[in-house]
Amino acid sequence: MTEEKIVTACLVIIGNEILSGRTQDANLAYLAKGLNSVGVRMREVRVIPDVCDTIVETINEVRAKFDYVFTTGGIGPTHDDITGESIAKAFGVKHLLNAEAYNILAAHYTNPADFNPARQRMAHIPEGATLVYNPVSLAPGFQLGNVFVMAGVPKIMQAMFEGIKDRLSGALPVLQRSVFCSLPEGVIAKGLEEIQHAHPDLDIGSYPTYGGPGPRVGLVVRGTSETEVGRAVEAVSKLVKSLGGEPVLE
Amino acid sequence: MTEEKIVTACLVIIGNEILSGRTQDANLAYLAKGLNSVGVRMREVRVIPDVCDTIVETINEVRAKFDYVFTTGGIGPTHDDITGESIAKAFGVKHLLNAEAYNILAAHYTNPADFNPARQRMAHIPEGATLVYNPVSLAPGFQLGNVFVMAGVPKIMQAMFEGIKDRLSGALPVLQRSVFCSLPEGVIAKGLEEIQHAHPDLDIGSYPTYGGPGPRVGLVVRGTSETEVGRAVEAVSKLVKSLGGEPVLE
Repeated sequence: MTEEKIVTACLVIIGNEILSGRTQDANLAYLAKGLNSVGVRMREVRVIPDVCDTIVETINEVRAKFDYVFTTGGIGPTHDDITGESIAKAFGVKHLLNAEAYNILAAHYTNPADFNPARQRMAHIPEGATLVYNPVSLAPGFQLGNVFVMAGVPKIMQAMFEGIKDRLSGALPVLQRSVFCSLPEGVIAKGLEEIQHAHPDLDIGSYPTYGGPGPRVGLVVRGTSETEVGRAVEAVSKLVKSLGGEPVLE
Repeated sequence: MTEEKIVTACLVIIGNEILSGRTQDANLAYLAKGLNSVGVRMREVRVIPDVCDTIVETINEVRAKFDYVFTTGGIGPTHDDITGESIAKAFGVKHLLNAEAYNILAAHYTNPADFNPARQRMAHIPEGATLVYNPVSLAPGFQLGNVFVMAGVPKIMQAMFEGIKDRLSGALPVLQRSVFCSLPEGVIAKGLEEIQHAHPDLDIGSYPTYGGPGPRVGLVVRGTSETEVGRAVEAVSKLVKSLGGEPVLE
């Protein structure tokens, strides 16, 4: 196996509404694909509640363990939005009124009465952080060290991520190709393992789905070398044919 | 705040296909609601890759920290299905052919040639574990200590969970009621915080959604006492009306 530089990321989803099952997360997949496009691999995701101590402990663990950390959720104006102050606490810095964030919001609320204390909370940012701009609803996220703090609303998170992508130093993106067939996994397993062994630099996965007529399996080849991914896909297709199946490439 | 017994759970989603963004998890919400129905609260979720060391480390951390741990994914017949052997390693026990699991599968594959070594892998279970039955595709999961190992395919996971629900000793389920309105969060924040302070046993959250005409916010009250949840919902409705909004209860 050749030594390959891998740049890693962890996503921390902060929010009781995800943990309770009330809201389905829609940020993981977007972020995983967006990170991969700049050569950063999502290696872990954590979903944690809006509890300051839990946020502090989690952030301090994962920012030491991964190259980048992204958080979503908890940066709005209500009392349950405690991500900013919790991140400040994790880094041991103050959570202060940030002039740039204040100006962005003050320019929006032309009637000073509308820029009330709750909204002014959104202009508080940990000391030393740089802003992550929010072109959708203005209230910014921020970057502190290797931690990027973003909104939980998917539309806002996506806009924020597009704005910070250029700040990331990645390595090679992972290419992914799939071969679908209707053979049962138990029939494919032996040959697939042999292909995995012949391509140790690749990651080959087998994912069954149910619901259609008979088993349908997606055999997924992942790797950074287009040539090697192509070779493995060819080997998987041959395997499927040799077992009497019909490979469908996607 | 009264002392209330809380029984906690952590879900560990094992699978490169979730981390890469290829597959959207569909088990978190189902499990969160199912656990709540028997008085167990999902307190954390982790998504980790199919890497033995990561599984071992994660399981040993979370099984000490939470009352129950549930895993999904990685119990099929292919080479990337390594959850069973990883859990055995985490507990320091052997991963052995389990007679009961073997009999379940052997009875299904009436032609002995079909019960090949790959499928026999699915009859290997950590020593000392009890089976979690799989009425959909037979290959069982298992329970070892406070860790429940289940399939990743939602239909199978759901059937497995319904079969083990009775093994869990929970406390009170969390009741959840929502008040929707079209006021901006920044207008509601102050009053909502006051209601939260008046009801310290409850968890009150504010969740904006975008996409419709103007901001729409869900104000969610969670707690174990129906009376207190009802009182807080009433207070939130009054607040919304007092600010010129129209509360919609759901």
